[in-house]
Amino acid sequence: MSLVEGTIARIGPLDEAALTQARARQDQLTKPPGSLGRLEELSVHLAGITGQLAPPVEQKVIFTFAGDHGVTEEGVSAYPAEVTAQMVLNFLRGGAAVNVLAAHVGARVIVADLGVAAKLEPHPDLWDYKIACGTQNLARGPAMTREQAWQAVEAGIAIFQRAAQEGVHLAGTGDMGIGNTTPSSAIAALLTGRPVAEVTGRGTGLDDAGVRRKVEVIERALEVNQPDPSDAWDVLAKVGGFEIGGLAGVILAGAAARVPVLIDGFISGAAALIAVRLAPRARNYLIAAHRSAEPGHEAVLEQLGLRPLLDLQMRLGEGTGVALGFSLVEAAVKILNQMATFAEAGVSEALE
Amino acid sequence: MSLVEGTIARIGPLDEAALTQARARQDQLTKPPGSLGRLEELSVHLAGITGQLAPPVEQKVIFTFAGDHGVTEEGVSAYPAEVTAQMVLNFLRGGAAVNVLAAHVGARVIVADLGVAAKLEPHPDLWDYKIACGTQNLARGPAMTREQAWQAVEAGIAIFQRAAQEGVHLAGTGDMGIGNTTPSSAIAALLTGRPVAEVTGRGTGLDDAGVRRKVEVIERALEVNQPDPSDAWDVLAKVGGFEIGGLAGVILAGAAARVPVLIDGFISGAAALIAVRLAPRARNYLIAAHRSAEPGHEAVLEQLGLRPLLDLQMRLGEGTGVALGFSLVEAAVKILNQMATFAEAGVSEALE
Repeated sequence: MSLVEGTIARIGPLDEAALTQARARQDQLTKPPGSLGRLEELSVHLAGITGQLAPPVEQKVIFTFAGDHGVTEEGVSAYPAEVTAQMVLNFLRGGAAVNVLAAHVGARVIVADLGVAAKLEPHPDLWDYKIACGTQNLARGPAMTREQAWQAVEAGIAIFQRAAQEGVHLAGTGDMGIGNTTPSSAIAALLTGRPVAEVTGRGTGLDDAGVRRKVEVIERALEVNQPDPSDAWDVLAKVGGFEIGGLAGVILAGAAARVPVLIDGFISGAAALIAVRLAPRARNYLIAAHRSAEPGHEAVLEQLGLRPLLDLQMRLGEGTGVALGFSLVEAAVKILNQMATFAEAGVSEALE
Repeated sequence: MSLVEGTIARIGPLDEAALTQARARQDQLTKPPGSLGRLEELSVHLAGITGQLAPPVEQKVIFTFAGDHGVTEEGVSAYPAEVTAQMVLNFLRGGAAVNVLAAHVGARVIVADLGVAAKLEPHPDLWDYKIACGTQNLARGPAMTREQAWQAVEAGIAIFQRAAQEGVHLAGTGDMGIGNTTPSSAIAALLTGRPVAEVTGRGTGLDDAGVRRKVEVIERALEVNQPDPSDAWDVLAKVGGFEIGGLAGVILAGAAARVPVLIDGFISGAAALIAVRLAPRARNYLIAAHRSAEPGHEAVLEQLGLRPLLDLQMRLGEGTGVALGFSLVEAAVKILNQMATFAEAGVSEALE
């Protein structure tokens, strides 16, 4: 069995016994039942994912994958394509938003090149899994071959597994790729069934005319490529991106390892749509860190059946939402394990 | 001039120059302008409050004030009144939710007795500012005298100033008091102009009949006491609580010291309504940590003109929402100060 098939085969259901135990413990803690809302739900979810009431949460890893997109030649981004490579260097120097937020919450950022359109100098902290120097222009033909789509997912799995050797208690997805809201909108349209215009936004800052052009480019891409929405590999290959495929791999590998995977914004959401089509059970291992300001994100989250933890009008990607989400997940686990029970604290319970 | 009057007189406007500088710096950081949404706004707000682009944020203090309420004899709470004192002991032992969440974000919890209806043993970490053993039953007459209302606000100011001697970079409000959603709903109804039923909820867990009884009790309290909504002292005295007055004092003292004050849930919101009536400028120093699941909170936030950072369906009080909010505020300040600029990182800016 291949790495991809083997990973998918290992994804199991949530641990029902742990879910039940966690729920029971929440109701014994010194607070009115349910009064910590989503923190309580999160702690129960974590128990179901990991099979433990007190899973370790110290080692938090954001997988920030970079890739370029041939479609940028259609003028679909407010920034020039060379920014992808420049931002990779910024990540490696620690100057980007994701570095700052990861450090704030005690997370590690793993920066991997899945398909940057530049020769990047080797760097000890740059994980080189480059499949090609950017995808092809999806408005004129397939973004990549089916073989490359497979390689991208496989790379994501391999990166997760390599990171897991040093420990990954909580995983999160992050992206960098000028132009990558375009393939993400294409994937979102195909896998949610919404019209392209409904799931296409300004990305890094297009004006109204730019958004109209972007919608036309995506509609042309769907017309030219005729991706089969029932075949996630076909969707990923024809209108996806290398970093998107890689993040789908991280999700599959995390789910197979019973590690919670926090999903960042719109690009990560597109990767999650692909992953969940490849392995429906993977959905149970996902936590939506935040709601992106990119308008298509809502439809993606709805399709995934996920409610975001945060809504701070962020739309940067990189894993910035994941970093903030990690802190809430960690808080939830601590609540379940560090609070006193009514019995321990000698606090009276509710009146009947 | 009295402590209260002097504190109110010292509350100044936000620092416009710092606001402008912070906004300008945000636009030079390596991300599309505005793409970090509310984190960017927060960093600018902090600059305006403190007058500094890089204000210190290490010393974070949650002021968790406890008080009892004579109105509990009307059966307005799902828990017996002795839980207030029991929970104070739980705070002192570190077993409550606010202890766990404060430790998670590196904050200190200052527990003060403003009016618990029990003789609490002296404890080195219990700040004794008891005004009386609980308020009177507000359904039958004033909850406290006007003099006691003044004492409560004064106590909050004194507690803040005592804490500030050791350093308070970020302040937050928290509460413990069985029955205290009842005075909070009364205050909310008076100071937002909404009907009592619209701002009254289940508190710690009333059933439908309990909520109906609570609404009747509050309506009776307004009828019996006839508080003057244009006189915040009259409102606080007739239908308030000692911990609510104390928290209003913390808000005034924080604003006077140019310290950001994070507001927790519904009870803290009622305290903020009082504080802002006493000193309208105090509003500029407030940050709403979260939206409580208690239904009246939305009306309170709207009246205050505050948008909450988090919405996690929490309704516990204690300062639990503040703890989580502290982490976001700290993240925002780090973003403004630790990210590289486009020039520093050699990253291209947006295309024209």
